[in-house]
Order: sequence, then structure tokens, then C-alpha cells
Amino acid sequence: MKPGFPRLATTRLAIVGVGLMGGSLLLALRSRCAAILAVDPDPEARAWALAHGAQAVAARPDATLAQANAVLLAAPVGAILRVIPQLPRWLRGPALVMDIGSTKSAIAAALAQLPAPLQAVGGHPMAGKAVGGAQHASADLFHHAPFALVELPNTTPHARAWALELVAALGAYPLWMDAAQHDEAVAAISHLPYLLALALAEATPTDAAALIGPGFRSTSRLAATPPPIMADILRTNTPAVRRALARFRAALDALETALAHPETLPARLETGKAHHAALLRRATEAREAATTARASTLPPETGAP
Amino acid sequence: MKPGFPRLATTRLAIVGVGLMGGSLLLALRSRCAAILAVDPDPEARAWALAHGAQAVAARPDATLAQANAVLLAAPVGAILRVIPQLPRWLRGPALVMDIGSTKSAIAAALAQLPAPLQAVGGHPMAGKAVGGAQHASADLFHHAPFALVELPNTTPHARAWALELVAALGAYPLWMDAAQHDEAVAAISHLPYLLALALAEATPTDAAALIGPGFRSTSRLAATPPPIMADILRTNTPAVRRALARFRAALDALETALAHPETLPARLETGKAHHAALLRRATEAREAATTARASTLPPETGAP
Repeated sequence: MKPGFPRLATTRLAIVGVGLMGGSLLLALRSRCAAILAVDPDPEARAWALAHGAQAVAARPDATLAQANAVLLAAPVGAILRVIPQLPRWLRGPALVMDIGSTKSAIAAALAQLPAPLQAVGGHPMAGKAVGGAQHASADLFHHAPFALVELPNTTPHARAWALELVAALGAYPLWMDAAQHDEAVAAISHLPYLLALALAEATPTDAAALIGPGFRSTSRLAATPPPIMADILRTNTPAVRRALARFRAALDALETALAHPETLPARLETGKAHHAALLRRATEAREAATTARASTLPPETGAP
Repeated sequence: MKPGFPRLATTRLAIVGVGLMGGSLLLALRSRCAAILAVDPDPEARAWALAHGAQAVAARPDATLAQANAVLLAAPVGAILRVIPQLPRWLRGPALVMDIGSTKSAIAAALAQLPAPLQAVGGHPMAGKAVGGAQHASADLFHHAPFALVELPNTTPHARAWALELVAALGAYPLWMDAAQHDEAVAAISHLPYLLALALAEATPTDAAALIGPGFRSTSRLAATPPPIMADILRTNTPAVRRALARFRAALDALETALAHPETLPARLETGKAHHAALLRRATEAREAATTARASTLPPETGAP
């Protein structure tokens, strides 16, 4: 590594946004970094961070970032987009910038504008809970989770190696992809499910609630996700979300047609079940491939780029 | 209790259908009944039942039912509908008949035809897993679950009391309702979620699978439900399922409209989240009310009428 750019162990990491995700990053990384500096406008979040291992806290990033040599942006997407252009004024000297925003195209475009000596990489761990707040944080939130990484024009080999170290420290596995590919995928497997959960809740008469069982709880769980976070996500991924919605409507229409022809139902349901199983199998294969690749490409513990 | 009609402790219970549900009933009730007789056409299911406490097993109900004084129909809905008309020939003398089918209108109509000395009650525990088979059974599957009970013209006070004893023995809580009300509710909170999970799976490109996280897993979980079971359920509840689908489409359309007006999104998402929270609260209140009512109306351990 070039002087000035940290390895994870020498990282003075500013976590900007101490919610469920930022809090979990703090818990998972506090023993792996030289220091954690936590930034959050909410006094309760700052108190939580201090009580859970942050060396310093601040309400705003400006002053604090001068003490950091890496920044992890863990705020809602809109806040991340507002912070990025300010980073060159706030950070002193070489520093790594990574975000964990749930949509990547707009953020990647902003990160790509960061001038040297800043280096940036986009990130998005596929982990979470349908409740917000650092009080729900846990160090193992990212265990065995896919962690999307987006390489940018200013992603140096240093930044790549640091990002891989960070992902490994979280117990997650890295999946490099471009921002557009990421956003199309998460529209299908994350943003669409959220909208379905919400519409399901809205379509459910209160009269039916007494019979709610595990099926409804599972299918509607994402409806509890904090709306401000989801509004930012949907605003920055609308075209891909619309494409996912169109595919979903077509699939639902086909199922409704099958309802009118009961003799076709079992085969129709088997097809859907088989595709679901194939998706989960593919997810497992991707994890295994990424885990194997990671083991064979771990950056050396010391030495040059 | 009249002579001949058992309490739970004197019940020689025939469980017809030893899958996830029948197997879990066996595990939960084997120490509470005088005997369990298990009926399943699948030799593996019969072997499982014998190994897990059934006193006798049979491939077909005909011969076995003569030894039972109560029958719990835990087969798919279509099989339940085929068995019910045969019960008067197979059962000897007074006996209780209960089903746990997921739709109640067609089954209730069939159960209501059973002549004295048979007594019937409809049932449906809101519990399960998105995998079938007795190998996934567990004694605590019904703990804290709502258990819908449907009173029929041939549901005597004996049958009511026996059903309440059974529900209590499972650790569930009873909710009496009529069959149409039940079917409308489960269309909304069970059958619609299944269709959404299936359509979500079908709408998901295989390319997106590598990023699958807990949100997709939760929302799509029901897609793994065994298709033959779901085909029977959908066939016997199609009008209510169509009404639930229409409500869902309207809610999804409204969400898609809000996508085009991002400034309206946060309020829209808050409304859905609040309704979701209200539904879960209502479910909790229904459980608390049923638990309190049960405690105050438990049938006496002995005595008349």
C-alpha cells in the first residue's frame, strides 16, 4: 500500500449514519480498525455509538472527517448523495470513501467525481432487518451476506484491496458488478418485494387480521421498513423498479388466468416453485463461487500494490 | 359428556393424512389422547408415524376408523372432501369428526351432512411451514397460533368442548367463525400471499439471484409450499381469492402512481407501514382476547351435559 492509504487495521474509519446498518458496521469493525468515528445528527444514535465502541462522535461530518483516513457512508441514499460532493473539503489528504447505499447508479456517478487523493468504491451489503435504528444493530448482520462492490474510475487497487478486507471482516462475501447491473438486480429482489409487502398490507382488511399466521408475517415483513429510507431508494431506481413491476404483473396475470382453469393449476404452481428453488440454488452457487474466489485472491497482509 | 363421546384423554384419534400438519398433530397429541391411529397412503409417512408414537397405522381409512372414536382429517382439501361422505360407513357408533383443511366452505357443507351419531366441527390452525412432509413436523408448530373453528348444525356442545380441549392441548387459541368469513379472511392473509410469492419468484431474472438477501427470501418463502396442497385450496376458494387479488392490484397501482410523484412517496409508504402495524396489532389483540376468553370458558374436566 502507498503511504497514507490505510489497511483495515490502520483505518481511522468515519461511519456516517448510525442506524441499523451503520451501527452493525460499528459493532463488526470496532476491533478491526484503529478507530471508529461515528457521525449522526441524532443525539441518541451518537450516545449509542459512544457506548458501543466509537472513539469519537459528531453531529455533522465536517470537523470529524479531518481525523479519518476512510469514510463509510451508511446514511439513507439521499443523504449520501448530499455528503459526497463535500468530502474533498472535509477530508485531509489520502482517504478511502465507500458507501453502502441500496441503489448504486446515482451514488457511483457522484463517487466517480471525487478527485485524488481520494479513492472511492461503491458497496451494498444485502443484509438488513425490517426495522431501523442502531438499537437493532448486530455484529453478525452481514455474516454470509452477498456484498455488492462497484468499481469506479477512482477505485485504485488499494481501494479494491481495502474493500475486500472490509467485506471479509464483516463475514460477508464480495460480488463485483457495475452499478446498472446492481440496480436492475435489486429492483427485482429487494425493491419489488418491498412494494409487494406494502400493497399486500394495504389490501388486507382489518377483519382478516385475527387469523394472521406465519405466511402473512413473512410475506408482508418488509412493509415495516422505514419509509424515508425506501422513498430515497425508489426515487433513485424508478425505471428498474417499473420494469420489475411489469414482469411481476405479467406473472400475476398468468396465475390469475390459471385460476380460471383449475386443471392447469398444479403444473403452473410447480413451475413457479421450481423457479423459486432454482433462484435460491443460484444464490448459493454465487456465494460458494465468491467464497472460493475470495480465499484464492485475498490481498497479501503486507506489501505493495 | 354423553357415554360414547370422548374427552381428549379418552380419544382414540385417527389422524388421516400424515404430512407436516398431521405429523405435528401426532407429536403434539400423542401424550394427550388414549391412542393415535395414523392413516396415510405413503409407506414412509406410515413408518414415520409408527416411529413417532402412533399405536397403529393404515394405508386407507376404511378398516382403521372402526377403532377410532374421533377423526382428524389432515389431508389436502380434495382428499378431505372425498373422505367425508364415506365416514358414516367406516366409523362405528358415536364419533367426533374434525378437519384442519385450509378452506372451510366446501368442507363445512360436507361435514354438515354427517348423520348422528357422528358430530362434526370444522377447524383450521394458522400454522405451517413452506415445506411439506412429516419429517418437518414439530410438536410446537401450533403454539400461540390462531385456530379457526367452524360450528356446524351437527356441532353439539360435546363437539365444541372437545374441539376446545384439542386446541388448548396444541397450545393454540380458538377463534369461532363461520365458514364464509374464514374463507374470505384466509384468501386475504394466506392465499393471496402465496400467489404473490409465486409471481415474485417467476418475475425474478436468474441474473439477479446472486444478490438475494433476507428480504427476497422472506417475501418469496411461500412459493415453496407444495403445489398439490395449494391447488386444492385455490380451487375451493377462487371467488374470495379473486376479490383479494383485485384489492391487491388496486393497492399496487396506487403505489406505482406514487412512484411517478416522488414527493408523495414518503407519506404513501408511511400509510402502508401504519396499516401493516395496525394489522399485526389487531392479530395480537385477537390472540389476547381469545386467550382470556379461553381461560374463563374452559370446559369442566368432568361432568354433564
